Amino acid sequence: MTYFHHDLLREFCLKILTNLGVSQADAYSTSDNLVSADLRGVDSHGVSRMPIYVERIENGLVSKKSNFTIIKEHRATLMIDAKNSMGAAVSVKIMKAAIEKAKSSGVALVTVNNSNHFGMASYFASMALEHSFIGFATTNAPSTMAPYGGIEPYFGTNPIACAIPSSSIPVVVDMATSVVARGKIILAAKKGDDIPLNWAITKSGEPTTNAKEALEGTVLPFAGPKGYAFAMLSDIFSGILSGGLFGPQINNLYSNNQTSQKVGHFFAVVDPDCFIGRNELVAQVDEMIKQIKISPKAKGVKEIFIPGEIEFITMKKREEEGIPLSIAVVNDLKCLGEQYGVPFINEMKH
Amino acid sequence: MTYFHHDLLREFCLKILTNLGVSQADAYSTSDNLVSADLRGVDSHGVSRMPIYVERIENGLVSKKSNFTIIKEHRATLMIDAKNSMGAAVSVKIMKAAIEKAKSSGVALVTVNNSNHFGMASYFASMALEHSFIGFATTNAPSTMAPYGGIEPYFGTNPIACAIPSSSIPVVVDMATSVVARGKIILAAKKGDDIPLNWAITKSGEPTTNAKEALEGTVLPFAGPKGYAFAMLSDIFSGILSGGLFGPQINNLYSNNQTSQKVGHFFAVVDPDCFIGRNELVAQVDEMIKQIKISPKAKGVKEIFIPGEIEFITMKKREEEGIPLSIAVVNDLKCLGEQYGVPFINEMKH
Repeated sequence: MTYFHHDLLREFCLKILTNLGVSQADAYSTSDNLVSADLRGVDSHGVSRMPIYVERIENGLVSKKSNFTIIKEHRATLMIDAKNSMGAAVSVKIMKAAIEKAKSSGVALVTVNNSNHFGMASYFASMALEHSFIGFATTNAPSTMAPYGGIEPYFGTNPIACAIPSSSIPVVVDMATSVVARGKIILAAKKGDDIPLNWAITKSGEPTTNAKEALEGTVLPFAGPKGYAFAMLSDIFSGILSGGLFGPQINNLYSNNQTSQKVGHFFAVVDPDCFIGRNELVAQVDEMIKQIKISPKAKGVKEIFIPGEIEFITMKKREEEGIPLSIAVVNDLKCLGEQYGVPFINEMKH
Repeated sequence: MTYFHHDLLREFCLKILTNLGVSQADAYSTSDNLVSADLRGVDSHGVSRMPIYVERIENGLVSKKSNFTIIKEHRATLMIDAKNSMGAAVSVKIMKAAIEKAKSSGVALVTVNNSNHFGMASYFASMALEHSFIGFATTNAPSTMAPYGGIEPYFGTNPIACAIPSSSIPVVVDMATSVVARGKIILAAKKGDDIPLNWAITKSGEPTTNAKEALEGTVLPFAGPKGYAFAMLSDIFSGILSGGLFGPQINNLYSNNQTSQKVGHFFAVVDPDCFIGRNELVAQVDEMIKQIKISPKAKGVKEIFIPGEIEFITMKKREEEGIPLSIAVVNDLKCLGEQYGVPFINEMKH
């Protein structure tokens, strides 16, 4: 592992995207989304995605311009066509629109169709925090997970994210509806590592610890029928309610280079002033966090963490010490840099 | 087990409640909520709850009148004080208000504080279905579940329910945020049955298969940190955003006979016409269900079920064959009947 400063890494990705013809703002959103994932320790959604993002833009499968059109608008809702934009870039614009809507209507529910891989879901939910609003984000994804009882992938590992303001570390929930994010199995396969037995099954439906067999098979939903139900709800809100595609209709980011992905998202923003009030919400969430932190711990547990706290601690650490990247990822980025005339950045000295 | 016709059982519960001074409408909502749970096989939330409901009304811990006041109202939101009403009775009225609001605003988000045990959460979410709306319901509950890594109960097993319309069997998600609903452990303890090892831990934090030890300890969240995160979100929406109580402040339905429960709820209603449209939503959900039903099955799996389908099948069966009640529950109901001058009903002949 070599370590890189997040500012340099963000700048590097941004320059590649702008050299490709992406606007400064959209390149920033995309780069910041990826680097934020790396900072928070969500390496599966970090800068390792840059090569495929670039490739898909180059192949004309993702639009260089990130715009959207509003299909329907009501008091507290927006139905949006993302026009095959880059997922993160357009989602930042859409969350800004949702926040504006929540400022006037108290609530904004927003569906998005015809979009692409948007990276780490909590990035968008967390945009609500600076207004002391509550943010929510979910997305469908290429099918990698069978319905409970099945063996053929139907749903994506559709993540669910929600961000709640506090005065210190915000509550940031962000989970795949599978036992683990598929990115972790991809990473294990790349490293040649085994995976735990309950993460996935082979394509014939057998349990496996082999990461490569798991990738050919199907990942398992968390808590069996419960993860399956949440994956289905995510797809109904992101894929069906949005007027978009759902289930196995969503195209793979990697294996299909003929068509755009046509991913759907669902965002929500809530202004606590419609209820208890922003300051009171923050004060009470602080109190809840305080109570949980002093709660008696199980044997061997040093600390009880709030959702998002481990990622927050990792972020603070990596902001100081740098983001660790594997040789494979570094080589990919160097290649990209040569291709687009952007000198690769120096690693951090430790 | 003896079997009883659901109409007779509902009528029996209704008469007891009206004899106690509860209005016809509120008695119907409460009875129907309990009997619906029994019909759907959710026995832990069925008529076995009647004795404690009656006892708490008699003790003045729950109001006989179910009304609410609106604390704040905005375009798409209601913040409600349930004034210590019966949980199910007031929640039916509140969901009706939410549905009316969604008719004009497209969306309604509603917080409720100062309420009581409301029974099966999907009962309220499903009220949206007759309008082809999407319904959502969650509630906090007395603390029985430690935060992930802890051993002392902090959260309730806060259920999350969502109902999505289809043209045949609707998608009805309703899950505890624990591995199983605590009611199932109560039932196992009553029967003297063992429970699986991963359901709960003892009060000193040890794994246990003993249902009684489990009840003194803490139930475990589903999928570890994921169930913990959802329980926390439910409590933030139901308990904090509502301006109500949260965490261990929620009083137990059974063990505390001095104070009211002060439960909080959160409801949401969405009109699909703000997005893809009601008919199109139903058509696409039908298509998703059809695709899932024909998906290849794992070894030993006869059928892949849609969330809520098993409960729907149970309901159809029990509508015909009757609701099975244990001798203990029948005896409790007979006692109640004698106390309130309502003759107990005849069992069904098979």
